[in-house]
Amino acid sequence: MKNRKLLMIPGPIEFTPEVLRAMGMATTSHVAPNFIEVFGQALERLRQVFLCPSGQPFVIAGSGTLAMDTAAANLIEPGDKALVVNTGYFSDRFAAILERYGATVTQVRAPAIGDAPALEEVEAALKGDGYKLMTVTHVDTSTAVGADVKGLAALGREYGALVVVDGVCAVAGEEMRQEEWGIDLALTASQKAIGVPPGLALVVAGPRALDAFHNRQIPVGSYCSDWTKWLPIMEGYESRQPRYFGTPAVNLIWALNVSLGQILDEGMDARFARHRRLSEAFKAAITALGMKQVPVAPDKTATTLTASYYPDGVDRTVLGYIKEAGVILAGGLHPDIKTRYFRIGHMGAVSPSDILATVGAIEQGLAQVGYEFEAGAGLAAAQAVLRP
Amino acid sequence: MKNRKLLMIPGPIEFTPEVLRAMGMATTSHVAPNFIEVFGQALERLRQVFLCPSGQPFVIAGSGTLAMDTAAANLIEPGDKALVVNTGYFSDRFAAILERYGATVTQVRAPAIGDAPALEEVEAALKGDGYKLMTVTHVDTSTAVGADVKGLAALGREYGALVVVDGVCAVAGEEMRQEEWGIDLALTASQKAIGVPPGLALVVAGPRALDAFHNRQIPVGSYCSDWTKWLPIMEGYESRQPRYFGTPAVNLIWALNVSLGQILDEGMDARFARHRRLSEAFKAAITALGMKQVPVAPDKTATTLTASYYPDGVDRTVLGYIKEAGVILAGGLHPDIKTRYFRIGHMGAVSPSDILATVGAIEQGLAQVGYEFEAGAGLAAAQAVLRP
Repeated sequence: MKNRKLLMIPGPIEFTPEVLRAMGMATTSHVAPNFIEVFGQALERLRQVFLCPSGQPFVIAGSGTLAMDTAAANLIEPGDKALVVNTGYFSDRFAAILERYGATVTQVRAPAIGDAPALEEVEAALKGDGYKLMTVTHVDTSTAVGADVKGLAALGREYGALVVVDGVCAVAGEEMRQEEWGIDLALTASQKAIGVPPGLALVVAGPRALDAFHNRQIPVGSYCSDWTKWLPIMEGYESRQPRYFGTPAVNLIWALNVSLGQILDEGMDARFARHRRLSEAFKAAITALGMKQVPVAPDKTATTLTASYYPDGVDRTVLGYIKEAGVILAGGLHPDIKTRYFRIGHMGAVSPSDILATVGAIEQGLAQVGYEFEAGAGLAAAQAVLRP
Repeated sequence: MKNRKLLMIPGPIEFTPEVLRAMGMATTSHVAPNFIEVFGQALERLRQVFLCPSGQPFVIAGSGTLAMDTAAANLIEPGDKALVVNTGYFSDRFAAILERYGATVTQVRAPAIGDAPALEEVEAALKGDGYKLMTVTHVDTSTAVGADVKGLAALGREYGALVVVDGVCAVAGEEMRQEEWGIDLALTASQKAIGVPPGLALVVAGPRALDAFHNRQIPVGSYCSDWTKWLPIMEGYESRQPRYFGTPAVNLIWALNVSLGQILDEGMDARFARHRRLSEAFKAAITALGMKQVPVAPDKTATTLTASYYPDGVDRTVLGYIKEAGVILAGGLHPDIKTRYFRIGHMGAVSPSDILATVGAIEQGLAQVGYEFEAGAGLAAAQAVLRP
């Protein structure tokens, strides 16, 4: 019997065999003609996946936090005002990074865990002061709260703030149309819906963000995030002329190019629709099993992951039984409710059968801890959505 | 016929099949029990490879430049004085990074390209002012100059400066005994003699470096390099208790642990001796072929790579012919002499037969561009050293 378990956490996720093969290939030189072509192509494809024809992509070895660092370090100068639309753990982090580079940060907080600030509140804040920049966490990985990026970006634009979207658990899964929606910078990490093992920070900066960078009065606070260094590298590889700053993460970039090709073969609209459908199926199962989600309403919920409270009388020991049944899920992350909920990632290459396998494993785990529910109710609810 | 070419540049290098298999494995969760064990073990092994039992290892997704950034950002506070022992391109970079975080930098420069500053000059500089920190580039990847790290570290200690060694093209190839030699921080990148595809920044900080960090008056200038965030993660994984800051680069860390195991199986002393012997063989061949090295003397030369001027009448077109003969070499990097020399990496898993294949390809390339030499002279010289 195969003993590999399905990895259904909010990243790293299940990767395609083609991506893993690229990871394990003999490493080429970072200036080999075939790698130059691959890196250049990956940059072009990133622009398409972010739906931002006018954007400048950056691919840098590092985690999603480095991507956030890059955004803050290059766009903020000491004394700048920044507005953080706070939907949880990762919004807190963005506020901390912005402050590190000298920003005065104002936060519009959600009324409760699982909720997002109302557009009216964000507008009131934007009206009340002049902000250079606002940040939005598209999907808060800690709570599965999804923000209304389109609405918030429009507000940011209206009031003259640069719109920065932390799309770490979102890009290439949640619908995001960077250029059309007026987003000035969007970022993610490779191990989420982009479908590549962890190790790459991915950023697409639009023209207004680049202008803000070019108009800086003082050097970027962080050396290793400085676009002064990275911009010539990205422009170089895209024009198929390699330039050197740091050695690119060759195998990861090769894998990135494979995955971006697969994403574009599916097509962005089809991909967004698939994520919505699989999310709907999975969330229907959670509800049918009598469980309540952390996001307070369907329109506050991500489609790339689900955060569900354990039913009464159940705790995280159920995750061990679910794992025995073949599926690895994640525990809670938000400090205030950490022990009371769990998280399921369903993004990237995830298939309908992965959803059913996951629901089945959850049913088995729940049964083993003595929770009473109608056996098969979750599977039936998911299948009702998935049935063509 | 196999058409894969041998990659003999100063990184990325040839990796072992076991390392590449680890790269291509299905990615585990970053909190999976088997990954926790692998990450913990890799940290323990890193301490052994750096020969620093009292050191604190850091493994962070990023390039070697991030490792340098980490050293400067955590140890420097604005106004601190730093001394850079300058042996080329990467010493210039360290000076720039130190300045970015507010250091006042003094540089002791080599009298010429290919040379290193004399110990007396460095001592005079240390005597003349009080420095918080000094940096040494163990191997300057641009020129193959190797620094007298042992002698320089002793001087730094004597005059109370923290000794920081950029070991990017050196660690696990050049002899370096971090604790015994009194080095306070050493760093490298995965794709060099450590033998793992690019994407990991590796640092081992000794107790005095950690003290300097803990005694800081102001926050670390760079958020993404801040040990305040990373130290609990490293301590956590080493005690087999995962903690979260950024998602670790799972596949790369898995590959790192495999490679560190192979390095320790060989044994550090045997590994240093192998690198010395292969370097001697290769350099004997270069000399026998009538070529002059960039380093001005054998005791100024790295053992992990060779930088050789082209013979009269030969230019970089010869690299194309050498590649056709099956071996990829690197062009020059130091701006002042860039077009006049080439570089050969021979570190990590490199074998005697790789050395012979490389010398053979160079002979073939030289013959094809019409350079006159005694055919086989390079091979004979290398073999004379390699013969048991």
